[in-house]
This record gives sequence, structure tokens and C-alpha cells, in this order.
Amino acid sequence: MGNESPLLNNLSLNQITTDNWNLQEAVEGCLRAEVPWIAPWRHKVHELGLAESKRIIQSSGLKVSSLCRGGMFPASTAEQRQKNLDDNRLAVEEAAELGTDVLVLVCGSAPDKDIDTSRKWVEEGIEKLVPFAESHGVKLAIEPLHPMYAADRSVVVTLDQANTIAEKFNPKQVGVIVDVFHVWWDPDLYNQIKRAQNNILGFHVSDWIVPVPDMFKGRGMMGDGVIEIRRIRNAVEKAGYQGPIEVEIINQSIWDQPGDEVLSKMKKSYLEHV
Amino acid sequence: MGNESPLLNNLSLNQITTDNWNLQEAVEGCLRAEVPWIAPWRHKVHELGLAESKRIIQSSGLKVSSLCRGGMFPASTAEQRQKNLDDNRLAVEEAAELGTDVLVLVCGSAPDKDIDTSRKWVEEGIEKLVPFAESHGVKLAIEPLHPMYAADRSVVVTLDQANTIAEKFNPKQVGVIVDVFHVWWDPDLYNQIKRAQNNILGFHVSDWIVPVPDMFKGRGMMGDGVIEIRRIRNAVEKAGYQGPIEVEIINQSIWDQPGDEVLSKMKKSYLEHV
Repeated sequence: MGNESPLLNNLSLNQITTDNWNLQEAVEGCLRAEVPWIAPWRHKVHELGLAESKRIIQSSGLKVSSLCRGGMFPASTAEQRQKNLDDNRLAVEEAAELGTDVLVLVCGSAPDKDIDTSRKWVEEGIEKLVPFAESHGVKLAIEPLHPMYAADRSVVVTLDQANTIAEKFNPKQVGVIVDVFHVWWDPDLYNQIKRAQNNILGFHVSDWIVPVPDMFKGRGMMGDGVIEIRRIRNAVEKAGYQGPIEVEIINQSIWDQPGDEVLSKMKKSYLEHV
Repeated sequence: MGNESPLLNNLSLNQITTDNWNLQEAVEGCLRAEVPWIAPWRHKVHELGLAESKRIIQSSGLKVSSLCRGGMFPASTAEQRQKNLDDNRLAVEEAAELGTDVLVLVCGSAPDKDIDTSRKWVEEGIEKLVPFAESHGVKLAIEPLHPMYAADRSVVVTLDQANTIAEKFNPKQVGVIVDVFHVWWDPDLYNQIKRAQNNILGFHVSDWIVPVPDMFKGRGMMGDGVIEIRRIRNAVEKAGYQGPIEVEIINQSIWDQPGDEVLSKMKKSYLEHV
């Protein structure tokens, strides 16, 4: 531990980083670049179909680090919340089918200008999903998002909150994702990583560039911003996490570059800055 | 307390809300709209000169809720940090001269990709500034900014941090600002407002609109977004704050409207939503 590069064996392409590729293209890109892991997004899986997506991944030999994403539990009506739960069950089945035991949860927003109630709905949603996920061998990974997404994507905005929810369940069943873009600003970050000891289900990297070019599509390549990524990685490893490290960059100018170039830069940045 | 409107007596125009007005125009606008308080920004004061700004405000009869802003303590070199401190002393003098006892602190960024050290510099800067501010009868009001500004404006991003710093000093000398735009997302918000009991030096309002149109100039008029403003106001009043309420909206499309219209909308939104 210290200033060493992470293992290339742990590098995973989160598929959103190459958004202009479909799943087949992303898998082929990983093979060419010798990236051993991939994290597909559900809309990309649906685009080619679950069976075909499974076939493509299995025949490639790539390992699947997680499926992005379940969650989005809150809704104004009980009926809609039930629909959201049904969709999460589908996501669990898809994760199991695609060969990963980690379903990432982006927990959802506050539709009624009432953030406390939404936070309650998130906890209820996870509680209802747990037995189904358990029966499929899939773990639920709560990903706190940056507070700038509290209104439209996730009322879970700190690792503290994610840990508090996760601790209500069997640690083998519900854990947390540490994504440097979402948590780097948090004065309590290193305490909370310690608290998540052995309950971290994923580690995502990108960077916070200044100025941020876009509220949603504003992430940078590792090393291009201000986040102490290696320090966070060391903390996460010290807390027992030895799994894949997903590069998850949502950025139009990176999407506009040829995927092979992005993967080449990504590998270099990973070794230098993660 | 409960669902009542705030007192118009407490309404203050934070000058950035009408950014296309100079200080003279803003003061005249407040008089026309019968807004009893104003919070000038230093660059606007410098534009007309301190003496002239003081004369304009004093002869208007408007009260000054705060001066925006001191802070920006961190810098890579000791020399630059000293310059920043000197500028803060100037800001203290300007606040006293303009007739307010509240200097708002926007604490500054992390120039060296080392957020812990920057946070230390912020505390050191405040500590050094306190005796000078005290001798001028000016209180220092630490304003935690939204975590999306951690890289470029303020490494103080939660009310918890601001309270922790403020508690190291005489509560009559260092306190906190509660700005709904910056803190509404915080799961610990109401605990931290309670903790700030009798140590709140200002309350700022605007709204979080979806989608946020711009990282910096993205704030909405009260009522146009998702923040539970009245709930937060009630909490702040319960914690002993009875002072002016600044409307601080940084938004290009509001800046582009005639100032008198903005003040008229602002009064209406204040009564309905604050």
C-alpha cells in the first residue's frame, strides 16, 4: 500500500465511459485493450437483449464487475413504487444472468419536495428487494451520489447514509459503492470508508475537473482533476476491498472520442493516478 | 411558528440578485420596493468607492444585513495566504464602515489538490482574523457552500464543519450562515441547525431548480424549486435566529430581467415560500 499503481487485473470498463459503443462493441474493445472486467448498463443490455448480451459476455471471457443499475425506489404513489420494485427484481435477475453478484443501486429522487419521505421509501424499497436478491445470489450495492444530484437522482448523498442503511442488513447482502466523484468532498470520507470495512462492493473512479463542464456529463479522466484518487483507493483497500475498479466517466467530449483511444488513455490514467 | 409568512421587516436584497445594478441603483430599487435591508458585495462597493457607498446607504436609511464577502483563505504560499488575510482585514473595515456587524466568509478552495491542508488553512485564517474583527465590532459568519463548489470556492461544505470551526471561538464573534441552496440536501441539516443555536448570523434563500441551468449561475426564485424553504426557516427561527433574511439568487435569466420586476417577484415569493 502507498504509492503503488493498482493491478491491471482489477481494471473494469464501466460501459457508460464508452457510451457510443453498444455492448458488443464495448466487449470487443475491452478484449483489444486487455481490460479484464466490464460493467454493463441495463439500457445497453436491453438494446441487444438479455440472452444475446449474456452470450456475448460469456463467450468473451470478460468478467462482470457489476450491473448498473437498480434503485430509483421513490414515487408519489404506492402503485408506482410497486412498479419500481418490480423493475428492481428484473434488474436482480439480469445481474444474476449476466454473471455478476453486484447490482448497483442509484436510489432515486424526491418527487414530492419531501426528501425525508423519499429517504424512507428508499429504505423500504431496499428492504423489500433484499430477500429476492438473496435468493438470486445478488448483493445490493448502495451508491451514494454527489449532493448535486439530490433533487433528481439520489436522496442518498453521503457514505454515512449508505453505511447506515447497509448496516441494517446482513453485510453479505447489502453493501456500498465508493465512487470518488461522488464522495471526494466529504469531510467524513475516510471515517466512513473505515466504517464500511469489508462491506464495500465496488470502487468507481473518474475525476472532478474545474470547471465542471456539465451537471451530468461533467466527469473527467483520472488525473485531470482535483480528487486524491490514490489516497481514496488506499483507504478502500485498507478497508478490505480487493475487487475490480470501475472507470465510470460520463462526459460528452470523451464519448465523442473513438472508444479504443478512450480505453488506451483510461489504462494509462488508471496506472498513474488510481 | 409553522406555516406563517416571514416578516417583510426582515427581507434583505443580497445585491448579487440584481447583478446588473450598481450599488446606487440597488439602493434606489430597495427604496421603491420597500425592501428594508440590503447586503452589498465588495466588488460593487469598490466600483463606487467605499466612502460614496457608505454615503448612499446611510442617506437611504436602508439597513445592511451583511457584507459579501471575506474568506478565500487558502493559497499555496505563505506569502499569498498573508495577502489573503490582509484582504480580509480590509473586508472587516469595510463592513464596519458600511454599518453591518456581519462579514460573510466564503472560505476558499484547495489549490494543491489537498483538501485537508486547505481546511487547516481556513481555520488558521479565521483564527488570525478574529482579534482584528473583534476590535472592529464585526462578526465572522462562516457560510458552508454546496459540495459542488468544494474544488473552486469553499472546502467548507457542511454546516457540521462550519459549526465545528465556529465553536472554537467566542460565539459572539464567529458564527454560521444558513443558505438553503447550499445545505438543503444534508441528511444532518436539522440537527446542525439546532446545534448552531444562537450562533446563526444570517439566513439566505433561493431555490434548487431542476435541472440546474448552470453550476454557478443556477439558483432559482423561491418556490420554483425543490427546497423545503419554510421548514428550514422555521428550524432556523427555532434555533434563535430572528434577523434579516437575504434573497441571494445567482442566475443569468434573473439578472437579465429589469431589477424592479425582480424585486417585485422576490417579495411575493418571499411571503409565499420562505
